[in-house]
Amino acid sequence: MTGSLIVIGIGPGHPLDRTRRAEEAIAQAEVVAGYDLYLEHIADLLEGKEQISSGMTAEVERCRAALAAATSGLRVALVSSGDAGIYGMAGLALEMATREGFQVPIEIVPGVSAASAAAAAFGAPLMLDWACLSLSDLLVDWSVIRARLEAVAAADLVVALYNPRSRSRVRQLEEAVEILLQHRPAATPVGIGTALGALGQRLVLSTLERLCEEDVGMRSLVIIGNSTSRVEAGWFITPRGYAL
Amino acid sequence: MTGSLIVIGIGPGHPLDRTRRAEEAIAQAEVVAGYDLYLEHIADLLEGKEQISSGMTAEVERCRAALAAATSGLRVALVSSGDAGIYGMAGLALEMATREGFQVPIEIVPGVSAASAAAAAFGAPLMLDWACLSLSDLLVDWSVIRARLEAVAAADLVVALYNPRSRSRVRQLEEAVEILLQHRPAATPVGIGTALGALGQRLVLSTLERLCEEDVGMRSLVIIGNSTSRVEAGWFITPRGYAL
Repeated sequence: MTGSLIVIGIGPGHPLDRTRRAEEAIAQAEVVAGYDLYLEHIADLLEGKEQISSGMTAEVERCRAALAAATSGLRVALVSSGDAGIYGMAGLALEMATREGFQVPIEIVPGVSAASAAAAAFGAPLMLDWACLSLSDLLVDWSVIRARLEAVAAADLVVALYNPRSRSRVRQLEEAVEILLQHRPAATPVGIGTALGALGQRLVLSTLERLCEEDVGMRSLVIIGNSTSRVEAGWFITPRGYAL
Repeated sequence: MTGSLIVIGIGPGHPLDRTRRAEEAIAQAEVVAGYDLYLEHIADLLEGKEQISSGMTAEVERCRAALAAATSGLRVALVSSGDAGIYGMAGLALEMATREGFQVPIEIVPGVSAASAAAAAFGAPLMLDWACLSLSDLLVDWSVIRARLEAVAAADLVVALYNPRSRSRVRQLEEAVEILLQHRPAATPVGIGTALGALGQRLVLSTLERLCEEDVGMRSLVIIGNSTSRVEAGWFITPRGYAL
């Protein structure tokens, strides 16, 4: 029995944005674990496979079940949307395996991140230095996140925001916008990509001062330009600085 | 005649890390433009296609030739390694098209970034907030880059460094390490991925204080942990903060 766990980023949602390595790893798995919505995104690959699925809040239990199945000798794929290594399941799987003593080979397969997918949909906003921040304060103190927002705002970094807002958590996005407005113009371009690559995808090009009025939720990825970003011919561009 | 330009991220180098969308777009192209090394990575897809290739320093000319070919009615693919939107060709193509008046449909296809690929190879170092910085001062003043390094070092962000060092440009990496050492321990884990996914791939797990002594070049991507990052069982992990 040679079980294994492969933690796989399946990309933003559309089958065309998966890598071949991700598809081959899922094809070879006997068990596939993941949040229900992400399993829907790979429904075409799941025939005949055992599934470990559950709601978003049960990710710790889902990860433990996946590691246990792998330890019992099964080939297990644990899937994340986007890239498994950016706010995905790669870290939890490795942390749990080392801390709880699961003795099983583990591999991480990277995917197209939500930030890269949103950037491509809007143009080229991430062409200069940028920061990748999550506004969720479930696992990190808000004071820490706030300090990071202040640092990246002052350093004029483009910002990609994960988990920008939920129904019960709205104040963080407002504070983030307040902080950024102290350092960059109200008209700074903002791109909001929601349900990227999936049914119901929405792309909204807005500005920093209007961001909080827009349709932004847990499935949104927000990109906020730096002081040089602009919108031209409908494209959100952060110029790299070439002399043309 | 309906020419078009598709700017494509082909992932870190290995064919398995391309997306299906990237492969299909290259398959449908009549002309493929890209830096020689990147065209080698997709040699299996190039049969019968016209090629526009040239050395790294000629990227502006290569982009203009690609746009001109598209404007003349050809389906043109312009390829970047990693993600085309992160220090890749997406920005230059959109900037040039809008500024020089090329009237042609343009699409950006995202790919697995070098940062995501390196992170997956080392474990899960990008699981908390991180910054994506380039140490190349060809297009951005070093004083600006330095200020960004100081900001992200103080805010305890994990750092992914692109273009960390070249044969003629070594001082920037030394300064970056000096700045980071003022805010995080000498033993902070560092992962250096060189020629990721390609022939001659090298993965070196080191520490912040030893980074400058390691084999780091233009094809390296460097990930520097934050104050909570650690190495366990050979994995470079930045814990997300779960109570296990």
